[in-house]
Amino acid sequence: MQIEYDGTDYSGWQRQPGDVVTVQGEIERVLGRITQEPVSIDGAGRTDRGVHARGQVASFAVASEMPLGRMMHSANSLLPSTIRITSMRQVPESFHARFSATSREYRYVLLERPSAIDSRFAGCSHGKPDVVLMNRLAAMLVGTHDFAAFSKETPDQQGTLCTVTEARWYRSGRFHVFRIEANRFLRSMVRFLVAGMIEVGMGRLSEEEFSRMLVDGGRPASLVPADPAGLFLWKVRY
Amino acid sequence: MQIEYDGTDYSGWQRQPGDVVTVQGEIERVLGRITQEPVSIDGAGRTDRGVHARGQVASFAVASEMPLGRMMHSANSLLPSTIRITSMRQVPESFHARFSATSREYRYVLLERPSAIDSRFAGCSHGKPDVVLMNRLAAMLVGTHDFAAFSKETPDQQGTLCTVTEARWYRSGRFHVFRIEANRFLRSMVRFLVAGMIEVGMGRLSEEEFSRMLVDGGRPASLVPADPAGLFLWKVRY
Repeated sequence: MQIEYDGTDYSGWQRQPGDVVTVQGEIERVLGRITQEPVSIDGAGRTDRGVHARGQVASFAVASEMPLGRMMHSANSLLPSTIRITSMRQVPESFHARFSATSREYRYVLLERPSAIDSRFAGCSHGKPDVVLMNRLAAMLVGTHDFAAFSKETPDQQGTLCTVTEARWYRSGRFHVFRIEANRFLRSMVRFLVAGMIEVGMGRLSEEEFSRMLVDGGRPASLVPADPAGLFLWKVRY
Repeated sequence: MQIEYDGTDYSGWQRQPGDVVTVQGEIERVLGRITQEPVSIDGAGRTDRGVHARGQVASFAVASEMPLGRMMHSANSLLPSTIRITSMRQVPESFHARFSATSREYRYVLLERPSAIDSRFAGCSHGKPDVVLMNRLAAMLVGTHDFAAFSKETPDQQGTLCTVTEARWYRSGRFHVFRIEANRFLRSMVRFLVAGMIEVGMGRLSEEEFSRMLVDGGRPASLVPADPAGLFLWKVRY
């Protein structure tokens, strides 16, 4: 299934014990109620607290033979309005939303000043950043690099190498948008990358300091991930 | 001052007694606290519960000689993040945000299906409306007409005549947007107009029934105002 959500009020994608409200937890609860069996879903991207999704993908297996159209309709009528299943289809048993994905695309939406309306779905640079310079940094990201400096993850068996196939900033109306596509992403990686580029674009970090992060894996202590409000898991490709 | 707000969680613009949270009430409370004097503000448009504003304008008089830049900055730091004063300047005493306005522009944002993300700032037609037909209705609205059928207001001394200078639907990405400009608007008028046009566009009301409303002032009992989530007070002209 494809899922869209406004992540503002959720503690991220991943199911958590107790009363912590997460997107995965909400969907599993609703699908369990509809099918009358315990349902466990696998999401393509484990988005952080407050991060949104336009095109999250999740897979699951159920014994229920309910038609998918009815299952999707029932789920959407029970889910909070900030989570929508936008499509559902049957896939081979070998399909796994996370492991079968060949690439993920994220977009980060940035405003130059806070807005009463747009800030729910955008980060803010509090000033005019040098986007030409930010695009030079973005171009550096393309290719296979060790992104350890741009993550708080403890490296798992897959390590910290990611292959970025596109990374660029473009203008869309009132917003600057950063589009990045890669085979995989480390935890908080897009938010660290965006924060680093904004720091350079606002003249608080040098281009050299940024490029050094990619090479030696060290991160300036002052660098914190950009506001999750601006980040969208946009599309997952298979 | 110019004001932007996400109206979702407010009981409209207008100050109300008791604990009812309104946009005017919040701004008056904050300005009163900053200037240490009771402040009463006049808004150009009294938006309904749940309606947003990009360009609301309000005027007020204070004895305080605090520089406007500082007043605006202080107010924004005390206001909830869903209300932003975007500019403030001194005006002649004769200026009144409501009575001096020559026109108001509203925009209504419409989606064809509900969205977890976009529905906070959009209404929904739950299907594909005939926008060409809706634009034919919109064209009818231009000029001076009696809009009594499109309001729940009891007519005041000004009556129910309004002069519409522009009314049209256009496409903007995923959205259909209705832009309307007039010298004045009756209570809930844009939402009734949009609801009527959607009903015709979805084939549930005829073009003739809609145009008859403009002529004889009667309203089909089934017609309720469109979802306030899609409506923005966009600009006030002086």
